[in-house]
Parts: sequence; C-alpha cells; structure tokens
Amino acid sequence: MPKILDSINSPSDLKSIDGSSLSELAAEIREEMVSRVTANGGHLASSLGVVELTIALHRVFDCPKDKIVWDVGHQSYAHKLITGRREQFSTLRQYGGLSGFTCRDESPYDAFTTGHASTSISAAIGMASARDIAEESFHVIAVIGDGAITGGMALEALNHAGHLGKRLIVILNDNGMSISPTVGAMSRLFSRVRFDRRYYQASEKSKRLLSRFSMGKHFWNFGQKIKGSLKKIIMPTTLWEEFGFAYSGPIDGHNINEIIQALEKAKNYTHKPALIHLVTTKGKGYAPAEIDAVNFHGISPKGSPKKNGSGQKVPSYSQVFAETVEMMAKGNPKIAVITAAMPDGYGLGHMQSVMPDRIFDVGICEQHAVTFAAGLAAQGMTPIVAIYSTFLQRAFDQIIHDVALPKLPVVFALDRGGIVGEDGKTHQGIFDLSYLSLIPNMIVASPKDENELQHLLYTATLCGSPMAVRYPRGTGIGVELEHELKEIPIGSAETLRTGDNAAILATGPSVSAALAASERLSERGYRVAVINMRFVKPLDEQLILDVARETKNIISVEENVLSGGLGSQIASLLHRSDVRGVHLKCLGIPDEFVSHGTQAELRSLYHLDANGIQTEVQRFIEANRLMKLDLISSHV
Amino acid sequence: MPKILDSINSPSDLKSIDGSSLSELAAEIREEMVSRVTANGGHLASSLGVVELTIALHRVFDCPKDKIVWDVGHQSYAHKLITGRREQFSTLRQYGGLSGFTCRDESPYDAFTTGHASTSISAAIGMASARDIAEESFHVIAVIGDGAITGGMALEALNHAGHLGKRLIVILNDNGMSISPTVGAMSRLFSRVRFDRRYYQASEKSKRLLSRFSMGKHFWNFGQKIKGSLKKIIMPTTLWEEFGFAYSGPIDGHNINEIIQALEKAKNYTHKPALIHLVTTKGKGYAPAEIDAVNFHGISPKGSPKKNGSGQKVPSYSQVFAETVEMMAKGNPKIAVITAAMPDGYGLGHMQSVMPDRIFDVGICEQHAVTFAAGLAAQGMTPIVAIYSTFLQRAFDQIIHDVALPKLPVVFALDRGGIVGEDGKTHQGIFDLSYLSLIPNMIVASPKDENELQHLLYTATLCGSPMAVRYPRGTGIGVELEHELKEIPIGSAETLRTGDNAAILATGPSVSAALAASERLSERGYRVAVINMRFVKPLDEQLILDVARETKNIISVEENVLSGGLGSQIASLLHRSDVRGVHLKCLGIPDEFVSHGTQAELRSLYHLDANGIQTEVQRFIEANRLMKLDLISSHV
Repeated sequence: MPKILDSINSPSDLKSIDGSSLSELAAEIREEMVSRVTANGGHLASSLGVVELTIALHRVFDCPKDKIVWDVGHQSYAHKLITGRREQFSTLRQYGGLSGFTCRDESPYDAFTTGHASTSISAAIGMASARDIAEESFHVIAVIGDGAITGGMALEALNHAGHLGKRLIVILNDNGMSISPTVGAMSRLFSRVRFDRRYYQASEKSKRLLSRFSMGKHFWNFGQKIKGSLKKIIMPTTLWEEFGFAYSGPIDGHNINEIIQALEKAKNYTHKPALIHLVTTKGKGYAPAEIDAVNFHGISPKGSPKKNGSGQKVPSYSQVFAETVEMMAKGNPKIAVITAAMPDGYGLGHMQSVMPDRIFDVGICEQHAVTFAAGLAAQGMTPIVAIYSTFLQRAFDQIIHDVALPKLPVVFALDRGGIVGEDGKTHQGIFDLSYLSLIPNMIVASPKDENELQHLLYTATLCGSPMAVRYPRGTGIGVELEHELKEIPIGSAETLRTGDNAAILATGPSVSAALAASERLSERGYRVAVINMRFVKPLDEQLILDVARETKNIISVEENVLSGGLGSQIASLLHRSDVRGVHLKCLGIPDEFVSHGTQAELRSLYHLDANGIQTEVQRFIEANRLMKLDLISSHV
Repeated sequence: MPKILDSINSPSDLKSIDGSSLSELAAEIREEMVSRVTANGGHLASSLGVVELTIALHRVFDCPKDKIVWDVGHQSYAHKLITGRREQFSTLRQYGGLSGFTCRDESPYDAFTTGHASTSISAAIGMASARDIAEESFHVIAVIGDGAITGGMALEALNHAGHLGKRLIVILNDNGMSISPTVGAMSRLFSRVRFDRRYYQASEKSKRLLSRFSMGKHFWNFGQKIKGSLKKIIMPTTLWEEFGFAYSGPIDGHNINEIIQALEKAKNYTHKPALIHLVTTKGKGYAPAEIDAVNFHGISPKGSPKKNGSGQKVPSYSQVFAETVEMMAKGNPKIAVITAAMPDGYGLGHMQSVMPDRIFDVGICEQHAVTFAAGLAAQGMTPIVAIYSTFLQRAFDQIIHDVALPKLPVVFALDRGGIVGEDGKTHQGIFDLSYLSLIPNMIVASPKDENELQHLLYTATLCGSPMAVRYPRGTGIGVELEHELKEIPIGSAETLRTGDNAAILATGPSVSAALAASERLSERGYRVAVINMRFVKPLDEQLILDVARETKNIISVEENVLSGGLGSQIASLLHRSDVRGVHLKCLGIPDEFVSHGTQAELRSLYHLDANGIQTEVQRFIEANRLMKLDLISSHV
C-alpha cells in the first residue's frame, strides 16, 4: 500500500494533503525513523517526541522562506524526512551521509547549524533582527527543549528577546528530560504545569485560568474587573509575560490540530515574541523508548561486545571512570562529582543512587558547573567535573578565571576527547589539548588505556592543581585493570618501545596505534621508539630532548588540532632548546572541522590509526635519510 | 580629629562601635575612597554604591568564617578598607600593590578570586555545598549587580540554587547600571520595582503587598484567606519564589539599619536560599559620579593627552574603532554592531544615538552576543561583535560552533588585546591569539597602529569568513589616519625594515617596539629586519621562510601566551618546512597569569618593550654567533 510519506517530497506537498491524514503521516514517519535508527543508530527518542510538531510547523509555515531553528538539532529527523532527505535517510550519521543534526550546508531547510544545546533562541533573534533591518517579513521559529532552555545562553537570549520585542516564535518542547531527566528550579516549575494539566481538562478559557491554583475558583467569582491581574497569578504565564513574551500553553504536543491552532495564533503577535509551551513524550510512539528515554536518547547500531584476551567483556572508558570515581569518593570524603546533565553518559547512575550527596547534576549548564566546582574547591573539596570535551568549550572562561587563576584543585574528566565519530563536526573533542594547555597552572593528561585512566584520575585528585584528564569515547583496549590506584609523577612520559631510527611521541588512544605501527615497522627493519606522552602539559622535556638527540626523527601523534596541541608544544620545545638537526613531523587534525563517520574511518582518514602512522613514519624516515644523503653528497 | 575608620583594623572592630556611628563611618569610607581613587584611578562608582551594604555585612556576619563573594569584585574597596588593607589602599591597582578586585591570595577575607561578571552565585553555591557536606555551619553571601545577574551563568546558578534549596544569601545590588545602563527584559522588571517603590512608602507589610499594582488595594480588602496567593501577584516576589528563593525587598541600599534587619532575617532561612533586593545609587555620595556613573565606573589617574607630531591629540584605538565602524555602517546597510554591555567602553555612544537600529547592546551576555551575531550573519548581515579580549573567552564555544563551523562572516573586534595594565590577572587579553587561531576557518589579525586598525576592520567586513581583529587598550601611536579605507590581502605580512643578522616577526603593539629596537640595534652595527605580522592566522608563510633562510635568526614578539600563539605557529611552520639551521626565539607571555601594573611596567617586565626586545635580540644574535664559531672550531 502506498504511504502518504511517499507523496511528501518537500514541505509544500504537506500542505495539499487532507488534514485528517496527518496523524497517519505521523505514524508513518515514526515507523520509518524507528526502523532506520534501530538499524543504523542515532538520536531516536528526541525525534520521536516532535513528529506532530514537525508536521504542524511545515503545514503552517513556508520553509525555507520561514526559518525553523531546531535547538541541538538531534530532534530533526522528521524534519529531514519531510524536507527532501528521505532517500538519503539511511546514510544518517555515516561518513559522507546526512548529519545527525541540522546543518546549513546540507539543506536550505536547515536554517542554522546546530549540535550543542541552547543556541536556538540567540540565532533566531539574530535572524529576526536581520529580517527587520532588511524590512522583510518571514517568520522565525526556535524549537528548544526544557533541558536546553535552562542553559545560560538560552536564558540570556530570552532576556534579550523580551527586551527587543521582535516578532519571533519560541516553542518550548517540554518533555521533562535533557538526556537525563531535567533538573533545576525552572524545571520544577514546568513539571508542576505538566502535572496540573491533567486535572483541568475544562474549556480553553478556564483551563488557562485554572491551570494552577485550586484557589483560582474563588478568584474567578471575583469578577471580570480583575481578570487582567488574575492572569498574572497563573504561572508560568506570569513568568513569560514578565519576560515580554506572549505565552500559550501547556498544549498537548501530540495533538497536531492543537499545535496548528497555537502556531496560527502565534503568527499574529507582531511586536512581541510568542512562546508556545508544548508538552511531549520523549520516545513517543515507540514503547521501548517511551519507557526508557535515557537509554534511547542516542542508540548505537548493534555489534558484539569487545572482549579481552581472557574472554571478559572490555569496559568502556566511561565505565572505568565511573567505577574509579565512586571508589575514590568512598575512601575520600573530599571528593564530589559535578555533571552537566550527563550522569548517564558518564555512567554515574550507580554513584547517584548510593552517594547522592556527593554528585551534583547541574543541568545543561557547563559554565555554572565549573565555577560551582571552583566554589567547592575553595572550601577544601576535590571536585571532579565530568563534562564531554566538546561541551567543556562552553566553560573556557570559567576554567581560566575561576579555577586556573586561583589554582584551585579541580579535576576535569573529559570524556569523548579526540575523534568521537558519528556525532560529527559539532561534537569532535579535537580542541581540548590546545585550549587547556594554553591556560597557566593547568595540567593536561591523557591515558594510553583504561588502566592508566584510573591512575591518572587518582593522580589528579592528589596533585593540588587544576588537572584535566582527557580520554576517548568507546571501549578500552582490553588491558587488565590494576586493583591498586597509583600516583603517576606529574609530567612524566613513558618509553614503551625503544628504537634509534625515529621516535613516535603519542598521546591517548594514538599510543596503542603507534605501538602497532612500530611493531609492523620493525618487521620491515625500522627501529622506532614509542613514547606514551601521558602529559601534554607539562611535557617530559628531558625525555623528548633525549630521544630527539638520539633518533633525530620525531613524530608526534594526537587526536587534536595541530595548532597548540602536543606537536606544536614539541616544536616550540625543540626550538627553545636549540637541538640541532632534528626533524619533526606532527600527525593530528589539520585546520578543519571533522565530519561524521565511524571513529575507525576518521582515524584512517587522518592517518591516526596504525596503518596511517606506519605509512607516515616510514615515509618520514626515508625522506630524511634522502635529505641526509643529499647533504653528504653535496659536501663530498 | 580621629576618625572612626582609624579604629577599624578588622571586621570585629566594626561590631563594637555604636550603631549610631555607622553612617559617619560610611561617610569617612567614602571620603577615603574618593580621595585615593581620584588620585590613583580605579572603579569608583561601584564601590561608592555599596558602602552601607559592606558595613552592614561585616556587622552582621563573621568573616572570614562566613564567606562573602563579591561579584566582579570592583565594588570591594570598602570591604578592603575594613578588612585590614587600609594602609596598602594607596597601592591599589599598582604593580606589587593591592588588586582592584577580590583575590584569594591577597586576604583571607576575599573568599573567591573575581574580575569577570556573573560568577558569584555559582561560587557561593559551591561553598555552601562544601559546607553542608562537611557539616559546618558558616554563612555564604553572594553580592551581585543587576547587570551581572543577567549573565547566563548567573541565571544557571539561580536555577541550581533554587533546585538545591541550600542555605545561601544572594544580595541583588540593583543600581540599574552595568558599566552602561542595564538592558534586557529582566532589567525592565527590576526598574518597575524601583520606580513603584517611591509611591508606596507605607508600612512594611503594605509596602510588600502593594509595591506593584494599584489594583493591589482592592485585593487587600479581599481578605486574609487569599493572602498567600496575593503575594504571588506581586512581582518580583513571584519570580524569585518560583525559583525557590525567599525574597525580601526592595530595600533602600543606603539605609544601614534596613539592610542589617534584612540580613538578620535572611540568616534564618535554613532550607532555601534567600534573595535580598537592594536598590542603590551607583556613585552614591560623590556628586560627579552620581551624575555620570558611566564615566566614573572606572577612572584613570590624570595625565596629559598624547599628541602626534603635528600637535594633534592622538585618538585611542577604541575611538578609531567606533569612528570606522560608524562610517562603514553608513555606507553598508549590512553592517550591524553587537556589544555586551560595553557601548561606552567601545566608544559607540555616538553611533547608538544616530543609528540605534544597527547597534545591539545585549547586556553582559557574551555567549548570546556571538550566536545572535551568527543569526544575523546567517541572514546575510555583516555583524561586528565588539567584546573585550578577556570577556570573549566566555563565548569560545559559540565562536567555534555557531560562527566558525558554518563559516559565517562575523567580525570580532577585540579591544584590550594583550597587556591591559591595572585591571590585572583577570583582565589581561593574553590568550586570544591562541584560542582564536586554533579554530578552523578563523582569520586572526592585529594592527600595528590605529591606521591599520581601520583597514583591518574594513578588510574583515569583506573577507567572507569569520575574522578577529585584536587591538590594544589605550592610545594609538600617533600615525596619520588615512581617509580611504583599504582592503589588506588576507594573510599578508609587511616588511618594515630589512636586515640580514636577524628578523623580528612582531604583531600588534609589539611592532612599533620592535622597530625602535631595530633602530637602536643598527646604531650598534646589527642589521635586524622587522616584519609586521598583521595576520597571526593565516601566516604569511612564504615571507617567514624567506627571512628565516636569509637571516637564520628569527625572533617572534607578541603580547600573548607563548602556547599556541604567533611564536608557536612559526615554530611549527619552520619544522613543517624543514628549513635547516634556523634559530627561533619567542618573546611573549610565559605560562603564568600577568599581575596588575601599568602597561609600560608589564611590557618591560616581559621584555616586550623596545628596551627588552633590543636586549633579547642582541643576546640571541651573539649566542647563535658563538654557537656557530663553536661548531666551526670543532670541525677544524
């Protein structure tokens, strides 16, 4: 049987179909998403929650003339299916395929490039302001979740939007969840509205008036005279109207007609922004995701778990982090963990249940997370800030100003450092070694494997300085986890293989790749040393200078941009020390954003896997040998 | 006549004096501050506004056991005078003297190190959480202005504080000003409260109930039954109580007894944070500052204006920026300017008055400012983001994620790049060349003088990429301003002097210092080239490699940390290009935070002035000459 979806090649097709078929279309879109995403992986639950909203938006507005900004963009799958990308949908998040977020380069229907939370309102106000300066008339709509709206920049934007009083529609997609359940006072407020709503399913008018207080009934009798003031007591109307918004809600986010009505009404506010409060269910329409939205936030394609030599399942770096931190916290009352809406991403669920007072989930608020940790440290605690590498960019100033300057002993645990894979350009953790190393008083470390991760975390809690431990997404390499935690001397590198033809100075997951490359090279007669640069800052200068003098050929390897990273620090060191005649080759990420694809594909692309390193090192040694021969022959 | 202030050596002395003398003490403190600060410079107006609050805080609380976190910290002068730093007060903001902000290293009474806005509530929650984990009982008080509280991280913190429900006191110091008047919807709300207050000077109870609506009188008769609900309609009580705070205010911030009563009351909230809304006058008690708080926000010690060769007053870089931007905006309808509460710091007052629609002051909201600009650029505008170097650190992620990734043509005008002087560690603009250069798609430039500033700004509006123009605080060097704006080829450096003994590659204000050094060196027989590295990214690689091959001695000079800066980029380039036998010396800021002092003192300290560069270059040439002689003699 032909599907309605088959007839939708662009949003304009959506306008011509019968209104009564829209629910059926929603079901088809869900079916398509579930089948594709459960096979290939992706952000399923968020996209399932906004199918009706997406249909309503494209029915009411004229994109791409009108602009929809999807906050984060991971809920844009239905939008992609409707805006001409259905055929490519099976390539989602694959190398060369569709992005998992919205992207200006991908489609004119993607008004803004997104990936990190809380940016949509700022971008939308910018677009609306540009529109007004150019005297154009299109609509701008920001769709933002109840988790993302508590991010500082979204609150800054709300404050500015209310001040400017420009025509703009903000849709609050309130599902009570970020990736984990939303926290914060604002969320408590939202949830009361969600809750009360079930009790007052009366007429539209009374629903608005009575949606909050049982007291409301008495007020109602008090007469129309005070109606204007009465509205103020009904939160969150008050909150939003005080901020200069026209508020409408809460609205059932799975009722297409209700949404369409609200959108049509919102179009009419010409001198103030409108906020539509939609209540949705994350994972809607797919039972496993509705029941467990946390684990269905993002799902990975099925694969068999990696096992070590003894046949045991190899833990992920996240698991090792969580277990180490919980163990340390049990033994040390000064340790506390701070996460920014990612307790599950960090595997901290167990610790949350057994030591709730020592773990703080501050919501999608990286800036606050870091300065909050600084406050803990100022009172003698040893806080561990658990924020993904890419999201910690949000707190760059707080790391400099509130932690490093007063040299407070805050530990930063950066999961997803380096190449993260399918999340693509917005999520690669490829800047952290640079942006952390340039900060005075910071120690920057990266473990070669999951065993070293636990030791470095332990070391970080003892060092008395701010220290970052950056580790990759995914499964460890399968080494044994030592039972006793060890303190690793700050700034000490480790020679894993010796060799006098060249030395590879690698950090993080590149170390095991370098080892494999060196082994293969030895089969071809090259003696290549491998150094585990556990610390990118401070560098083990003596060791580097020693191998530089010995081998004359240094290759640095890092999953980080070359600017300001490990290789760049080594280049500066070699010049500073005036070591003569040393060749340096820096492998890493060139000056570009790294697209989506599997970690393996991307590592191969940038010559950061064993094959790539092997090829680069061999070529480097040979080129330098030739150059030397040239020099000698020119002297003969 | 002995002053009361003479008897105050620590806050405990404050507790023993008679309550009726406190106003006199306040007058003495003001007198002391005015005389010192008008002579030596500093942040006068903010500190004048909180004299009564400071006295009340130290009368009610026991510091340093209790912790006061002064947001920004520029209003802490009275606090410094009371907490044993009166004798050193004349050294304020001078090299080796007291910091102009609060600083943990300076005094146990400074609970947190501050300088940037909006950090205090986060830090205070951290301290309160540490207290509760350790089962201690001290008080934590955050004092924050109405400008700083609209910064995203402060809003994140309020949301978290309301959620946690910990004992904590937030004092909102509401003077209606950031550095310029506060903007935003939240500020409009505050100002209504401030305004209405003048109308209702009735009893405490009615004041609270009637402070907002004239409607209130009718409600009052409606009876006690609905009193609980009535309170909700009186904003801002509602707003704060919805956020989980106990609210008290507005209170006259210059009435010590009223403040003391409010503080005593706030002590009693044990399971929720309390917010005290204080209305103060910035500059209070010093007529010139009360009348013109914008210009008295920070005042500089008197000095005669710098003049150029023709006897004309030399403009500041800020003035040249403002005039250039206004001129460009007149000719190009696509140009808009975004400032984060700094229209006056950027000299944009005139443009605000003549082109109000093309200039957006978003408040102390750097994150929103950048993504808002990205939204403008996404619709074809050419936005110019005017944020001081040190404050732009707040928007690091937004620059990467919202501007550079989609390659939107946003211009960043970073005033106060490099060494800023008296504002010290928290305000030095010494990280920008590094944190901007590591971002793909970014162009990073710095003019050698005020004339080049205008050309680089013009170039930035034409280049079609994100581009940062970073320039120093203070007066230009006195060159003629060309009337016609010129486009400078992206990535082109400029040879200002030739020479074959060495080449200085300098950027920004270091260029003129390098020229002076080179001239003096020529008198001693050294031929030293000087290259103006207008672009730190992309580098003029060909020119660098040419002078490297010719001179073999390269000296880079920059007012930036060495990690990831100009010198580091050159080091990597030299290795990448495998140029043999080149010595490189990098002058810049070592891996440390730079203290306060005059710009001249600090430039001298780091050998970044003409003298320092001269000494370093000469030493470098001689050392390399000796090394060469050694090599030759060892081969003989």
